[in-house]
Amino acid sequence: MTSPAMKLVVVGASGRMGQTLIRVISETEGAVLHAAIDRPESPALGKDAGELAGVGALGVAVTDDPLKAFVDADGVLDFTVPAASVEYAGLAAQARIVHVIGTTGFSEDDETQIKAAARHARIIKSGNMSLGVNLLGELVKQAAAALSAKGWDIEVLEMHHRHKVDAPSGTALLLGEAAAEGRGISLKENAVKVRDGHTGPRAEGTIGFATLRGGSVVGEHSVLLAGEGETVSLSHKATDRSIFARGAVQAALWGKAEKPGLYSMLDVLGLSKTH
Amino acid sequence: MTSPAMKLVVVGASGRMGQTLIRVISETEGAVLHAAIDRPESPALGKDAGELAGVGALGVAVTDDPLKAFVDADGVLDFTVPAASVEYAGLAAQARIVHVIGTTGFSEDDETQIKAAARHARIIKSGNMSLGVNLLGELVKQAAAALSAKGWDIEVLEMHHRHKVDAPSGTALLLGEAAAEGRGISLKENAVKVRDGHTGPRAEGTIGFATLRGGSVVGEHSVLLAGEGETVSLSHKATDRSIFARGAVQAALWGKAEKPGLYSMLDVLGLSKTH
Amino acid sequence: MTSPAMKLVVVGASGRMGQTLIRVISETEGAVLHAAIDRPESPALGKDAGELAGVGALGVAVTDDPLKAFVDADGVLDFTVPAASVEYAGLAAQARIVHVIGTTGFSEDDETQIKAAARHARIIKSGNMSLGVNLLGELVKQAAAALSAKGWDIEVLEMHHRHKVDAPSGTALLLGEAAAEGRGISLKENAVKVRDGHTGPRAEGTIGFATLRGGSVVGEHSVLLAGEGETVSLSHKATDRSIFARGAVQAALWGKAEKPGLYSMLDVLGLSKTH
Amino acid sequence: MTSPAMKLVVVGASGRMGQTLIRVISETEGAVLHAAIDRPESPALGKDAGELAGVGALGVAVTDDPLKAFVDADGVLDFTVPAASVEYAGLAAQARIVHVIGTTGFSEDDETQIKAAARHARIIKSGNMSLGVNLLGELVKQAAAALSAKGWDIEVLEMHHRHKVDAPSGTALLLGEAAAEGRGISLKENAVKVRDGHTGPRAEGTIGFATLRGGSVVGEHSVLLAGEGETVSLSHKATDRSIFARGAVQAALWGKAEKPGLYSMLDVLGLSKTH
Repeated sequence: MTSPAMKLVVVGASGRMGQTLIRVISETEGAVLHAAIDRPESPALGKDAGELAGVGALGVAVTDDPLKAFVDADGVLDFTVPAASVEYAGLAAQARIVHVIGTTGFSEDDETQIKAAARHARIIKSGNMSLGVNLLGELVKQAAAALSAKGWDIEVLEMHHRHKVDAPSGTALLLGEAAAEGRGISLKENAVKVRDGHTGPRAEGTIGFATLRGGSVVGEHSVLLAGEGETVSLSHKATDRSIFARGAVQAALWGKAEKPGLYSMLDVLGLSKTH
Repeated sequence: MTSPAMKLVVVGASGRMGQTLIRVISETEGAVLHAAIDRPESPALGKDAGELAGVGALGVAVTDDPLKAFVDADGVLDFTVPAASVEYAGLAAQARIVHVIGTTGFSEDDETQIKAAARHARIIKSGNMSLGVNLLGELVKQAAAALSAKGWDIEVLEMHHRHKVDAPSGTALLLGEAAAEGRGISLKENAVKVRDGHTGPRAEGTIGFATLRGGSVVGEHSVLLAGEGETVSLSHKATDRSIFARGAVQAALWGKAEKPGLYSMLDVLGLSKTH
Repeated sequence: MTSPAMKLVVVGASGRMGQTLIRVISETEGAVLHAAIDRPESPALGKDAGELAGVGALGVAVTDDPLKAFVDADGVLDFTVPAASVEYAGLAAQARIVHVIGTTGFSEDDETQIKAAARHARIIKSGNMSLGVNLLGELVKQAAAALSAKGWDIEVLEMHHRHKVDAPSGTALLLGEAAAEGRGISLKENAVKVRDGHTGPRAEGTIGFATLRGGSVVGEHSVLLAGEGETVSLSHKATDRSIFARGAVQAALWGKAEKPGLYSMLDVLGLSKTH
Repeated sequence: MTSPAMKLVVVGASGRMGQTLIRVISETEGAVLHAAIDRPESPALGKDAGELAGVGALGVAVTDDPLKAFVDADGVLDFTVPAASVEYAGLAAQARIVHVIGTTGFSEDDETQIKAAARHARIIKSGNMSLGVNLLGELVKQAAAALSAKGWDIEVLEMHHRHKVDAPSGTALLLGEAAAEGRGISLKENAVKVRDGHTGPRAEGTIGFATLRGGSVVGEHSVLLAGEGETVSLSHKATDRSIFARGAVQAALWGKAEKPGLYSMLDVLGLSKTH
């Protein structure tokens, strides 16, 4: 490929995700770190972004000036906070570049502003940037629609490390929602999260959840569709938290060739029906 | 449900699959055994089809007259031989009923005749009648298309009982074909079926196969898409050979409401793009 | 092997397990059905035991006279009720043959009588006759002892068909007990059977249970020992309820060469430390 | 625990494994880094071992003087080269401390010298320092012995990242050896590493291998024992290369309370029959 590498800006450069993004960009063919942005009071300002991220000097010093950084860039990768992301979306619109948003917790008003920015920016936004998890969600929806509740029972199993404090995981619930959507039912009314003692036979159409905790497991999710004499299992296993950064960089590379608009990871995967 | 049960004819009634079909019909709500057909020289003629299949008398004697049987029937289930299936398709067209064909090994000329019959009959035809395997194939195709060969390696793993004499299984190859189709490549040119000794690093874009044999395993298949830090697995496990009969009965029930035409199991699953 | 086949008596011959035992004996090299016993009022009396079990005539008619049957037999297979099993143990002691007892629910007094009978009979007794499950229990105990609670979290996962009405399964609890025994702790005080909502981090030394229900799954159990960066999994998968009959026949064949005594399936597996 | 932390020396401190050892020690309760040794020409000499390993200053400068370091130490962790390890064993014997050896490739003469050193040092030596893999090997041996070749087929499955250049993995072969030892057969004569095309039915008593390659998988191994109607699976999954360093630190902590002698990881796991 002879096209020039995509020039990417990392915002929130000194954070854990920012540093992972810098590392992933440095390993990705077709991408190059153009600028690294941090808050004005950050102690990282002036330091080399590559050294900060442990990949050796990249010749890119951390600055607090996004405006200047965006002008010559092709895209920006953003896992920060809603207020900052809304501002970056505006700047990305002015610069007419790609804006990948992994930030979560937006208000309705924030969403409206991001939508407005997407008239000029190519914005790819998702609460979970893993390609694998997004793919799995879509496949689960299709499978749940294809195999009827009459003969096929849906179960969601997840395992995470011993430090996780809630259950089931957000991703398990997301997969349960995908299954419920495929079936055209409400997850809330059909979820079974506890089985202990005398449970009675499994109620038709329910979606069961089971949770394992232990060791340092990053995240494993399986959706089972169990029928008479056969079972279909759709699973995702993460072994490295960098998958969210990898997904974001892939999203940016994909967005380079698209028209302005608001996209999801399903668009990046080519699985969206609407765009 | 107040609509009358679908009246189904089983052809090849004394064979192993015929008997399984009779059993599955007797357990399926909305379906009823209407007739059981066997060859003119069959010793089963005149016997009760239910007793033959081990489910108790059903009041349906095995006969060798399909024409009479089809007239008042709603559908016919057929895992026989090409010559017989082509003839049954013609009769199904006359009777304007559903014809589910699990027979394999058709010639081009046979296919043409079946296509002709499908102008009046609703024919659902597939080399593998399992709902789960057909679903898996479609999901594998989509996954292989969504996750590029650059970062994602595809592997097909299968396990079967100790008596199986070939490897990889036909279903493993079918899943490999689905993956290759999703990637837009030739399976033949990209399949890796042997790894032993110094193999060198995995070549990008190849599709690997691994085979386990042992015990009485009916059939387990997994397709893995392994990326950097994450793996997606799509699996099917059969524990009972009756799944092909179950899929055929489901196909018949589905076909009842359709227009004449030639359909596949993807249509039954609602996953076809073309119908 | 030129030694004559072991002559086995099946008691409770008309029951579901009795018929499975007859089938398994007929398939097992080195074993032959010698007699089939049922209750005096059984409608099966006088019928051919093989025809009853669906394997064709074996030339052995069902009778209600165990005494006569035991005299020339080498062993008896018994999944009946406590009162009957205690009586059979006495007869087996007189005949100095092998008595495999899969019956459960014995009183303390029953146990005493069986122990007394084991002075002359070779009695192999277990609440679960599957070779695989018994092996798994022993391996789990060893693994739990070898990998300390400080770094390794134990989780028990099970899946069964949709009709099962209790959770976790008896076998899951048995495996949990094996793990607790290996750790030298009480399962009751350390079991965690429910995880829903805010659970807090996993407490060190606990043993977690997770339950899946769906389809027609006969029984799958896994014990995970999850440490920092590595996980050991020990699993058993049953696809056929005949495994209990198979284990019983294997136990009988093993017992043929042993001295009188009371044995468990761990002895059959060669894993017992005490005999 | 009120006993003082075990003072550990890391040799080969600037290497990848040396740095992992330093990190693991710094996280392990009951262990403290006492000294870090490197070759006389190493550029790491004089630098803080903790900073080198990325865990912040530990106040321990890298030196090239093992003799001085061993005097006041409790143990030494050694993944270097045979010549160095033999020398360290001699010094450990003089200091009467624990010597954990993960080095491989020793000559017979080296082994003799290490054995001699073990008269005064407590030496724990293994070609694979993972607690999980060592445990699995022992359990596989027992399972293969308990479940006879007549009814149970053994298969070894492994998966590694796309860069691995040989197949099956060394650990897969080690597990195959453990199975063969349990069965009392030669692995070489019974291994089946290729299945492609017409294979014929599985030969009784063989041990099959299947290999998957893809993504960044650190290492997954499963040994299956597949019987009629049931399968036992014993598996190990590594997600982090630090498990070898963790195992070494655990071995050192275990060795602190032992008498001089030559030990293996099975001793550390409490699974050895001979000590």
